[in-house]
Amino acid sequence: MRGRFADTIDINCDAGESFGVFSSGEDEGLFPYVSSVNIACGFHAGDPKVLDKTVGLAERYGLQIGAHPGFFDLRGFGRRELSLPADEIRTDVLYQLGALDAFLRVRGLRLAHVKPHGALYNMAAREEGIAIPIVEAVKAYDPSLVIVGLSGSALERVTTEQGLRFAREAFLDRQIHSDGSLVSRRDPNAFVPEKELVPRAIRLIRKGEVVSVEGALVPCVCDTLCLHSDTPGAARFAKVLQEALIAAGISVEPFRTED
Amino acid sequence: MRGRFADTIDINCDAGESFGVFSSGEDEGLFPYVSSVNIACGFHAGDPKVLDKTVGLAERYGLQIGAHPGFFDLRGFGRRELSLPADEIRTDVLYQLGALDAFLRVRGLRLAHVKPHGALYNMAAREEGIAIPIVEAVKAYDPSLVIVGLSGSALERVTTEQGLRFAREAFLDRQIHSDGSLVSRRDPNAFVPEKELVPRAIRLIRKGEVVSVEGALVPCVCDTLCLHSDTPGAARFAKVLQEALIAAGISVEPFRTED
Amino acid sequence: MRGRFADTIDINCDAGESFGVFSSGEDEGLFPYVSSVNIACGFHAGDPKVLDKTVGLAERYGLQIGAHPGFFDLRGFGRRELSLPADEIRTDVLYQLGALDAFLRVRGLRLAHVKPHGALYNMAAREEGIAIPIVEAVKAYDPSLVIVGLSGSALERVTTEQGLRFAREAFLDRQIHSDGSLVSRRDPNAFVPEKELVPRAIRLIRKGEVVSVEGALVPCVCDTLCLHSDTPGAARFAKVLQEALIAAGISVEPFRTED
Amino acid sequence: MRGRFADTIDINCDAGESFGVFSSGEDEGLFPYVSSVNIACGFHAGDPKVLDKTVGLAERYGLQIGAHPGFFDLRGFGRRELSLPADEIRTDVLYQLGALDAFLRVRGLRLAHVKPHGALYNMAAREEGIAIPIVEAVKAYDPSLVIVGLSGSALERVTTEQGLRFAREAFLDRQIHSDGSLVSRRDPNAFVPEKELVPRAIRLIRKGEVVSVEGALVPCVCDTLCLHSDTPGAARFAKVLQEALIAAGISVEPFRTED
Repeated sequence: MRGRFADTIDINCDAGESFGVFSSGEDEGLFPYVSSVNIACGFHAGDPKVLDKTVGLAERYGLQIGAHPGFFDLRGFGRRELSLPADEIRTDVLYQLGALDAFLRVRGLRLAHVKPHGALYNMAAREEGIAIPIVEAVKAYDPSLVIVGLSGSALERVTTEQGLRFAREAFLDRQIHSDGSLVSRRDPNAFVPEKELVPRAIRLIRKGEVVSVEGALVPCVCDTLCLHSDTPGAARFAKVLQEALIAAGISVEPFRTED
Repeated sequence: MRGRFADTIDINCDAGESFGVFSSGEDEGLFPYVSSVNIACGFHAGDPKVLDKTVGLAERYGLQIGAHPGFFDLRGFGRRELSLPADEIRTDVLYQLGALDAFLRVRGLRLAHVKPHGALYNMAAREEGIAIPIVEAVKAYDPSLVIVGLSGSALERVTTEQGLRFAREAFLDRQIHSDGSLVSRRDPNAFVPEKELVPRAIRLIRKGEVVSVEGALVPCVCDTLCLHSDTPGAARFAKVLQEALIAAGISVEPFRTED
Repeated sequence: MRGRFADTIDINCDAGESFGVFSSGEDEGLFPYVSSVNIACGFHAGDPKVLDKTVGLAERYGLQIGAHPGFFDLRGFGRRELSLPADEIRTDVLYQLGALDAFLRVRGLRLAHVKPHGALYNMAAREEGIAIPIVEAVKAYDPSLVIVGLSGSALERVTTEQGLRFAREAFLDRQIHSDGSLVSRRDPNAFVPEKELVPRAIRLIRKGEVVSVEGALVPCVCDTLCLHSDTPGAARFAKVLQEALIAAGISVEPFRTED
Repeated sequence: MRGRFADTIDINCDAGESFGVFSSGEDEGLFPYVSSVNIACGFHAGDPKVLDKTVGLAERYGLQIGAHPGFFDLRGFGRRELSLPADEIRTDVLYQLGALDAFLRVRGLRLAHVKPHGALYNMAAREEGIAIPIVEAVKAYDPSLVIVGLSGSALERVTTEQGLRFAREAFLDRQIHSDGSLVSRRDPNAFVPEKELVPRAIRLIRKGEVVSVEGALVPCVCDTLCLHSDTPGAARFAKVLQEALIAAGISVEPFRTED
């Protein structure tokens, strides 16, 4: 993702995170208002039936589809840090890419991107030793896949060094410090009040800047905005956001996956 | 598999059935003496690292590679019958095909066949309702894949009806009744004494017949012989068999996957 | 459970069926209106944190606590029939009893009953070969435990033969045929309309009879009524039922666990 | 474990670490030569049938039985560090204690000790935040249980502060540095040559000292020696060691679990 696209933005959400009888997220409510989805691959959530259904739903809404691989830790929903050798990270990611991709292939769809989940996402943002096997797996599987992650992360560096494209993700609902880091979830000011979200989104897309929790203007270039599907009212807000962006002349569409 | 190949035979074994620190089978010992392998896909056995290693080993020995999908039941090694709706069987098989295939794709290899494992194999031999979603998954994923199973089974019927090719498997070490059915494992005469195995194999390949436990000549056409990798001494016997077949002018090579 | 208790009835519900981030059932809403709970033990649902929380909640409401062991099948929520040898059923139940009981022991509580879950419940109702290892596990662990199941089931026969006490359970919301069997869930008339539930409950408790779907009076003696915690509106209905029973002079209290 | 017992020593081994069809360790070979066992509880290894069999075997050999709880990570055999909140560690340990204990109770046996497994053992040696919930679980379940771990570890401090008894464990086959720390497994000198093991054991037991890899005499008081059941030849060595100790007038018996 080289350029900035001041008139377009991708909105992504995680999806397919149910398991067996257990339901999670409001995929059906969100899909009309996003442009890309990251589908869980069965390790931190998702089972084959859920994958199948979610890919079918994404196809129906014409969404760009990405894989959302995580740690093999259903009980912890992939949010607990796990100390794995690089080779297991590489093979775990590869396994998940292939498993999800099967459900796209049988529909004639193409996988477009890969966004690691939860603790794997956070660890890959921080540590090259985690980012490398992820990028290796993706590159070996299909070097045209775009990797999605935090701007300025280890994952971005490794992806670029390996010659793959990277889409920079911002979390609209999370406050950031003036140095660009996220305000901790434990801080009472961690989240942006809902009424500020739409203007924040428009400023971010149009001007590439965000107001930090300390009040400073922070440059922030992003290719895709993440909506959390498990926030109560996620679908309702997604609709509001999409309509406001369209009204502001910004089109919601997938980030470019080809130069 | 239309014709009979009196001068060639495929010998297959199941492989990649270790999990984490737990080791199962003697893949490395058997691979020099077989022509095709069925690799577990992570449900009844196998984990991503094991899949990767096993595909690499099969490549090194130039073996034809198939998927060996089973029930999601590691504790029972996929040998316990599980009552699943057809749609879950279809998606479980599809998931496993994609997951294994990822490890072939990154090496430029092609998946050649699919042989269901354990209880799934037995249920698919008996019930069309189980065979159908298996064949549907395989056909949707890649209709050039050959399905491996028992001759005369429901799986063979469904495969053929769906226009896919089927390879008939025989278990060299199991006695059969004069009606062609297997002698139960609980019967003291269930297994063929080792010294009879080589002549039994040659008669089976050359003449398409087997002597039943009751002493009758039973027609039995097979495209592939299965060696059990978890039998003690499996590798040693595999070597003896391969050498005897070659000495008898029979070449051990994969069944044809194209007309 | 020998006698009938025309002025009292136990109302039970299954509980503790969440897992990790996945939530299931409305335990907190139902607990004020039931007298006993069957707590999942981590095999078909529940994890140690959920067990701990659920036992604590049951203690707060003064409920009688039972174990709700199921098949080791989280993906299928223990509802899929699994073919297990008797010895694995026995050890699976024993393991689950001990695991749940630990959370009672540390609070000074006593386990009172055991009600198998899902497919294990259904199979134990039908087959003595399944009922026997369940009863053996319970008897070995603590012969004062009451086993809960269907009246007239194989589980009732085996429990009684083994000298343990049995509590007969009725499903208030399910229609029955004149021969006492349940109307299949697939039948459009499977469920009793909500407005009929309260009079149905009172007749059942007071007179030991139920009107079948064909209109006949069917004798039906029960010690405990099961409320399904995953039915929408379960908590609201539980409140209505409890109030109606009290108004009718029927007290809602645990079935007797001692003679 | 207050005093030193110059004429007696406990020898422990981990056991019950098979799973389903997967076999691990040589329990049956080792049991004649040890005095206590730590039995896996189903999280990092072990399943209910394996627990049952292992407890039965330990009973037959008259061994002192302890629980060997680990992380819920079968694929990693509990050897991978996992970042868990304290409350999940506490409930995970409690669940495992209860589950294993069920198999002792039905035989009229008593659980004597608890030794954490793998990554949980190492993390509890290092971090009080991990040791605390382990000790809390054990204390709540049964404060007469002895906790087994490294001498000088965080686990020892917390155990003692909480008023429970602690048994100090030494690994006979691992070299230590002069400061008492273990030589890393990656170091070519990590392991003690087999021929030195017996004199090393006798010096350790009789004199409470060990020769470090640098050649210094290091004080080392231990209550129990751990034999690794997965080392090739473990059973053969255990026999040699037991005979040598007896010949030296040292009796192999469980550490004291009561004052």
